[in-house]
Amino acid sequence: MEDKAQIQEAIKSQGEVVRKLKSEKASKEQIDEEVAKLLALKAQLGDDGKTQFVLKTPKGTRDYNPKQMAIREKVFNTIIRCFKRHGAETIDTPVFELKETLTGKYGEDSKLIYDLKDQGGELLSLRYDLTVPFARYLAMNKITNIKRYHIAKVYRRDNPAMTRGRYREFYQCDFDIAGQYDAMIPDAECLKIVHEILNELDLGDFRIKVNDRRILDGMFAVCGVPDDKFRTICSTVDKLDKMSWEDVKKEMVNEKGLSEEAADQIGEYVSMQGGMDLAERLLQDHKMSQSKQACAGLSDIKLLFKYLQLFHVTDKVVFDLSLARGLDYYTGVIYEAVLTQASAVSAANEAQNGANAEESVSVGSVAGGGRYDGLVGMFDPKGRRVPCVGVSIGIERIFSIMEQKAEASPEKVRTTEVQIMVASAQKNLLEERLQLISELWNAGIKAEVMYKKNPKLLSQLQYCEEAGIPLVAILGEQELKDGVVKLRVVATREEV
Amino acid sequence: MEDKAQIQEAIKSQGEVVRKLKSEKASKEQIDEEVAKLLALKAQLGDDGKTQFVLKTPKGTRDYNPKQMAIREKVFNTIIRCFKRHGAETIDTPVFELKETLTGKYGEDSKLIYDLKDQGGELLSLRYDLTVPFARYLAMNKITNIKRYHIAKVYRRDNPAMTRGRYREFYQCDFDIAGQYDAMIPDAECLKIVHEILNELDLGDFRIKVNDRRILDGMFAVCGVPDDKFRTICSTVDKLDKMSWEDVKKEMVNEKGLSEEAADQIGEYVSMQGGMDLAERLLQDHKMSQSKQACAGLSDIKLLFKYLQLFHVTDKVVFDLSLARGLDYYTGVIYEAVLTQASAVSAANEAQNGANAEESVSVGSVAGGGRYDGLVGMFDPKGRRVPCVGVSIGIERIFSIMEQKAEASPEKVRTTEVQIMVASAQKNLLEERLQLISELWNAGIKAEVMYKKNPKLLSQLQYCEEAGIPLVAILGEQELKDGVVKLRVVATREEV
Repeated sequence: MEDKAQIQEAIKSQGEVVRKLKSEKASKEQIDEEVAKLLALKAQLGDDGKTQFVLKTPKGTRDYNPKQMAIREKVFNTIIRCFKRHGAETIDTPVFELKETLTGKYGEDSKLIYDLKDQGGELLSLRYDLTVPFARYLAMNKITNIKRYHIAKVYRRDNPAMTRGRYREFYQCDFDIAGQYDAMIPDAECLKIVHEILNELDLGDFRIKVNDRRILDGMFAVCGVPDDKFRTICSTVDKLDKMSWEDVKKEMVNEKGLSEEAADQIGEYVSMQGGMDLAERLLQDHKMSQSKQACAGLSDIKLLFKYLQLFHVTDKVVFDLSLARGLDYYTGVIYEAVLTQASAVSAANEAQNGANAEESVSVGSVAGGGRYDGLVGMFDPKGRRVPCVGVSIGIERIFSIMEQKAEASPEKVRTTEVQIMVASAQKNLLEERLQLISELWNAGIKAEVMYKKNPKLLSQLQYCEEAGIPLVAILGEQELKDGVVKLRVVATREEV
Repeated sequence: MEDKAQIQEAIKSQGEVVRKLKSEKASKEQIDEEVAKLLALKAQLGDDGKTQFVLKTPKGTRDYNPKQMAIREKVFNTIIRCFKRHGAETIDTPVFELKETLTGKYGEDSKLIYDLKDQGGELLSLRYDLTVPFARYLAMNKITNIKRYHIAKVYRRDNPAMTRGRYREFYQCDFDIAGQYDAMIPDAECLKIVHEILNELDLGDFRIKVNDRRILDGMFAVCGVPDDKFRTICSTVDKLDKMSWEDVKKEMVNEKGLSEEAADQIGEYVSMQGGMDLAERLLQDHKMSQSKQACAGLSDIKLLFKYLQLFHVTDKVVFDLSLARGLDYYTGVIYEAVLTQASAVSAANEAQNGANAEESVSVGSVAGGGRYDGLVGMFDPKGRRVPCVGVSIGIERIFSIMEQKAEASPEKVRTTEVQIMVASAQKNLLEERLQLISELWNAGIKAEVMYKKNPKLLSQLQYCEEAGIPLVAILGEQELKDGVVKLRVVATREEV
């Protein structure tokens, strides 16, 4: 594309692509993307000497402005405080891993992994989650016991839906307990943590669904699903939160080749929800009780509920046989938290997008996790297993909700913590201002000064109001003579 | 390499490479790298069904373990506290940018940029620093005034030297002030910030070298350097902190084709160090004063020193004409902070590496920055300029020093903040322990419990000692009957 005529031709045809999309009323994102390509082509031409760059962030990513960062910091602080309260240490791993470290861990989703260009040296990929790097870290350092949290960005070449908080670069907040312990004690703590965090963040009512991979597998077995179809049928069940049972059944029968009878039996089980009582009933169920696996899972669910009662969190927890979770590596208990109360703002949002607000009772998963006892062993040369259980907080959705809340609130989000502004009432007091602010900084006080020799008092006061700075120290010649500083409370104009 | 025989051949020849390096006593890093390749080949063979993976992080990267994270958190807190004290907001940008955003910003260093693989869609690169994304952010959002900090990882495909804190993935801590202000006021604040941070981190004595790109350019002009050689001669001058003047001169004359006379004149100037007095002297210098640019720079240096006096930081600041800084985009004041007191540990380290401890007075740059008034304009379609000045804290070197300090100190680094352990003196008290710890968590107390049904009291107490948990609540049947809990101070064994 070095040749000008060639570029001009490309611009022409790209222009048509954009026009066509617009006439078809394609999605804004799709149009934006094609417009970006067009601008890039025009920039290559560069004969107007102006637009040399397309000014944007990569698809599916965003900058955080100071206001968003203030909200993000608040959410992180709540989460980290909870993780620390539960005695977790923290680790960090590189943003990229050897490509082979990620190979074979994500099933079909592997196609969403970002690879780095081969510039000579190792083949690298951006991390897809924090769990696989954690397992690699444990195996590499031969760690058999740790309780750690890890908050960092992960990368997925997925179709972004940024208004719903789905990005290609996004944060994960993971808490995991690794080690050989007595059943369900660490698992219960993970659920307690989800409960504490969602309570503290005050996002409205929520529900934590719980199930067990062994119960699912046992159920598939007793319903007559062939062994080699467990995983694929499991991922179809996982779609029950987005699709009706009829459509799920259709997929099982028509696409996955399951018998109608087996599908119907599954359908009966996956409609069940309850608590410890349901686990007890299923242990007596003449079919379910034939599966050793299912029984092991059901007994553990009972135990889990017993511990959750001691933690006083059973009000939010439901044993739900339709919960499957997508990832391959889970081996035991799995769980997922959903907000059940569409907040006013998000309901309005859904309505805008043409969805029925009535339907949007569940605004989607905000936390999830489970037990994965086999993953670390995949990295260990001798296959030594390190049992793990963990939870990941879906922070981007939470950011979205908090941002909408902040927008809707009349209260202003402060982006700095400045306590005092050093101002002057007359000209030629820059030196005095600098001297005073230096003393304040040295005393650990958060302070600002305007970077002008002779700023107007009014503009200094205005700056305070805009930035929400509560106090202003006003220097004047008379005060300097008297050896005092006038302090004014910005909101009330009170002076001392 | 799909064919087994081919792989086996490759393993054989790679094995020889490793043997040869070992016999040559090559560096550990070099050997490790080749061993990794060997292991990767063996893994490909995979016929023993064991080692399928090379368990390592990518070249030039590392994991942070909990101890390192605890140190990192402490350093970050100090730095962030300082940035906030000075009223900075914070922003975040994606880890990758459109490739073209980075193009043409880093001169020769562009070859060190990590590119992502073209998987369809946009061409992307990992960010190389935080300054270019910041400029892109300002131009994109048409922001003309901001004081912001940004702490994040950046990526350079450089030759790693991990023992000296040089990585391919590393943190930058940037503080920048953008906006049209009166001369040298924000610039002086940047130096004040460096002074505060290095003082608080307590890394030993330091010196902040200051110079101005306009003084360098003026100096080059009056010394007879041709215009088109300014930048390349500037990068040679930049090597003066690592090379002797003789070698620098040789490079100027032999490689860059400068006349011996011009080089000698430069040599005279770049040996000069001083304070405000030196700036005054040079303003009178018959040659230097011929350059308008140099005079503008020198006047600003004078002004800068005046403000630094008001901040009481001139004791650490030196006007040093040999300071050049590598990056192209600086347009005014530049500065760099170096530790002058090789701490005991790092001196020992240098000695191990065969260097003369006497020579290692300067352990290298720990902060640097300057004024770049043209960068934002490169992104603006209309070329609108937003003057900027900033500083970047070289955090990885600081981590290295702090880690060495922590290693050398008898004090143990705690990796959690747990205040109390809930323990039991007898069997069958799991439920009571869980109930109590739940109450503690709900009260915001950092607490742990062992994930065993019947842990031994001794092992619970041992855990406290290892983890540095100061208190333990011991449940016993008698105490439960009496409705009390026994509290023990772990260190003194005192009980209440």
